[in-house]
Amino acid sequence: MKYLSGTNPQTGEQLTGEYPIANEQTVDTAMQKAWTAWKTYRTFSGKKKATFLRAIAEEIEQAEGLVDRAMQESGLPEGRIKGERGRTCNQLRMFADLVENGSWVEATIDQAQPDRQPIPKADIRKMLVPTGPVVVFTASNFPLAFSTAGGDTASALAAGNPVVVKAHESHPGTNDIVSKAILRAAKKTGMPEGVYATLYGEGHKVGQQLVLHPLTKSVAFTGSFRGGKALYDLAGKRSEPIPVFAEMGSVNPIFILPEKLKNGASDLAAQIANSVNLGVGQFCTNPGILVAMQGEGIEQLKSDMKAAFSQITPACMLNQGIYQNFESKKEALLQESGVETEFRFNGDVDAPNARPAIASVDAVHFLMNENLQEEVFGPFTLLVSCRDEVEFLKVANHFAGQLTATIMGEQEEVTKYTELFGILQEKVGRLIFNGVPTGVEVCHSMQHGGPYPATTDGRFTSVGTAAIKRFARPVAFQDCPEALLPDELKDGNPLKIVRVVDGEWKIA
Amino acid sequence: MKYLSGTNPQTGEQLTGEYPIANEQTVDTAMQKAWTAWKTYRTFSGKKKATFLRAIAEEIEQAEGLVDRAMQESGLPEGRIKGERGRTCNQLRMFADLVENGSWVEATIDQAQPDRQPIPKADIRKMLVPTGPVVVFTASNFPLAFSTAGGDTASALAAGNPVVVKAHESHPGTNDIVSKAILRAAKKTGMPEGVYATLYGEGHKVGQQLVLHPLTKSVAFTGSFRGGKALYDLAGKRSEPIPVFAEMGSVNPIFILPEKLKNGASDLAAQIANSVNLGVGQFCTNPGILVAMQGEGIEQLKSDMKAAFSQITPACMLNQGIYQNFESKKEALLQESGVETEFRFNGDVDAPNARPAIASVDAVHFLMNENLQEEVFGPFTLLVSCRDEVEFLKVANHFAGQLTATIMGEQEEVTKYTELFGILQEKVGRLIFNGVPTGVEVCHSMQHGGPYPATTDGRFTSVGTAAIKRFARPVAFQDCPEALLPDELKDGNPLKIVRVVDGEWKIA
Repeated sequence: MKYLSGTNPQTGEQLTGEYPIANEQTVDTAMQKAWTAWKTYRTFSGKKKATFLRAIAEEIEQAEGLVDRAMQESGLPEGRIKGERGRTCNQLRMFADLVENGSWVEATIDQAQPDRQPIPKADIRKMLVPTGPVVVFTASNFPLAFSTAGGDTASALAAGNPVVVKAHESHPGTNDIVSKAILRAAKKTGMPEGVYATLYGEGHKVGQQLVLHPLTKSVAFTGSFRGGKALYDLAGKRSEPIPVFAEMGSVNPIFILPEKLKNGASDLAAQIANSVNLGVGQFCTNPGILVAMQGEGIEQLKSDMKAAFSQITPACMLNQGIYQNFESKKEALLQESGVETEFRFNGDVDAPNARPAIASVDAVHFLMNENLQEEVFGPFTLLVSCRDEVEFLKVANHFAGQLTATIMGEQEEVTKYTELFGILQEKVGRLIFNGVPTGVEVCHSMQHGGPYPATTDGRFTSVGTAAIKRFARPVAFQDCPEALLPDELKDGNPLKIVRVVDGEWKIA
Repeated sequence: MKYLSGTNPQTGEQLTGEYPIANEQTVDTAMQKAWTAWKTYRTFSGKKKATFLRAIAEEIEQAEGLVDRAMQESGLPEGRIKGERGRTCNQLRMFADLVENGSWVEATIDQAQPDRQPIPKADIRKMLVPTGPVVVFTASNFPLAFSTAGGDTASALAAGNPVVVKAHESHPGTNDIVSKAILRAAKKTGMPEGVYATLYGEGHKVGQQLVLHPLTKSVAFTGSFRGGKALYDLAGKRSEPIPVFAEMGSVNPIFILPEKLKNGASDLAAQIANSVNLGVGQFCTNPGILVAMQGEGIEQLKSDMKAAFSQITPACMLNQGIYQNFESKKEALLQESGVETEFRFNGDVDAPNARPAIASVDAVHFLMNENLQEEVFGPFTLLVSCRDEVEFLKVANHFAGQLTATIMGEQEEVTKYTELFGILQEKVGRLIFNGVPTGVEVCHSMQHGGPYPATTDGRFTSVGTAAIKRFARPVAFQDCPEALLPDELKDGNPLKIVRVVDGEWKIA
């Protein structure tokens, strides 16, 4: 059997712990067990699933060595990892609350009308039910919150589906500690064997086997466009195609309106520089492109951003692959026609410490060259300068689907840019005003998703309570005996959930 | 320019009227106009869209010659066509009510907490917005209700999307009359040019061009598995993949429990024979397979069904293609190993009048042969007899995804079959008790959809108000000025819609 080990990206040192690389047999075993578990797990009440989710949070909080290991494997500082652990556990508890409350199932009832003419109306009751085992591909950039027990796993379990996690090669030790915490929680709360499993792989093979396994019913992925698209295509070729919810990155453009640029370039520069360099630029909502009109302020913005960037100490990226990608994509972009290097850290630092950079280009060159709107994953941003409002709107129209876009503007001017507001709404999952896109609030109203190529399905989100909807589908019961009906649909509303009855919303 | 004409399937006679066959240029023009229309139409209030939808219903009701033409082109009787027209107009008015009410947008608000530690919480407000122009492929079997102004068109328009209908070759004249009604309604109610268009095509070319057009953002289809799957695959290969909501048929198994079989075989036979032969068996919810345990009653069921079937006068199918498919699929199935012909109309009738048939097979042969669960679109059903409950459940487990399944059982026995209940829930969109699957109620709780291969996306329905969700996606607005916010998300809830505010459901 082959094994995988963790590596400290900062030192290159191989870490302790060996994790067995899966093969077709272990993939099949995990999926068969998940399938068997599903038969029981999908019938569990929201209350029971909530107990499990809360127990996972507790086990993660108590897991020894987790913070150290995550720091070692990711190169991220203690404060960040502790914050992420908190976020991970909050997410688990948020989904626990959601399914304990129960209203998420969209219970909808139309009562019988036996005397209706010309034909009687049947009693029909509909609710969301889980879709089956979910394979989760974890992200490297959030080794806890978008990983083993992150939003994908939490929402899939909350919906009533077993989860098989394909561990990220960047943090197998962290994955092992969190996976064991999940398994302890499963045991303590009486969950069926197979409700959770994790597998390790090198390269793409194990991931492909998981996506192609006939008992896999959905896939969740956070990572690169290339990776997400490959899984999406693979899943579409199955004899039973399955959905792949891939969140594949974005350049998250910030549009700066003239008055704001004139009055507040220095503040903007500080705010943006901070957002671009947060987590060494390794956030999916990193603002990789800024769009502004030439005029007063743009030179100030550039020089203030340069000043802010030159204060940044190059920091360790998540792994050698990401570092190499960043350096080569950044350098290639800086060589593109019309692109000027505004700032590039040129000091002497070892790999994999990222050298932040700022580039600029005029709108004419930007509009001609598709390469310029490709994501450079890391601490980098490209300022696109437009001659006038027409060009500014042309640039806005030119963007492909994005997770977010941001409008920075003075109060009076923002409301005048209705055309920009309209264009950006068509392009994004989240439209921000006078704030930075990094810092994705985990809440009911969050939409972390957007039109292709930001994600493979912009109708869903991977952050916030609505993430659960990815792993559920409606079933309607027609004239079903009360004894067989799920509690959510029973007469008298025993769970006291929100329901739509004969077209009327009823809050119990 | 080439033209398409209608044909009377009963007489083979070519009908008046010539409809121009589209080409790449006319496809592009329709999509460009739809795109331009979208920019305006997507901003229209629910109230305004409702006016349009209601005007379409009125225009259809008043359209001269519609019933006659639909009868001529479909071979369906007057009562059926008039009923279908009523259903079509009711659907349009149902979506009008839905969007006028406005709560369908799932408005969700989390209010700002500027003082939150360690970081302030932004104000985030989310709602569903339309996804862009929808291409609708119409069905032959409901020339009105699943066609030009059917559920797909009504729900897409209601969501705020322009529609381009690819007319069905089976009823171009009906399509023309209804399309003109839609266009009159659009003009009367001030809708933008391009909000609706229809195109005619021969073979697959025009359909393919529509699916591949870059401005097409979703596709809706009702028809055969082959047709739906081909469009789904095509859409997945675009540089920007788009969703195809294809409803592709189903065998809609009916499971008959032993007590029911013993006590009520004659009633069952009448009920089922009626459902199988409804609309000449050309319903997507036609019960194509019956599953029962050997024992008292099964012979009675067979002989009563034979008696009922022999009362059926062979009737005209929708077109020559469907007739030929029915006859060849039926005959091929009757030749499969272990299949016995229980009844086959052998009188002398002309094409395209369908000859109803009943076949039977034992569970052992059924489980060995995948061909036996393929849909035979027309008045045909296959009775699968099982030796015992183990085999009965094995057969249940063997089915692929279905639009519906039905359990026929006495009150006391139904609740004992919890395993069957569990198995069928995983397979279907709608589970019916002691009723037939034909007759799909258009209401809030309807789920007309099911796991693949019944549809390409079991998370959505093509009948009922929830059909609108296919053509919308959430957008979150963060710290958006009140003046720019859509009314659905404004402070004070001016539209008085249902919203979730800080996690609490609020009914205005």
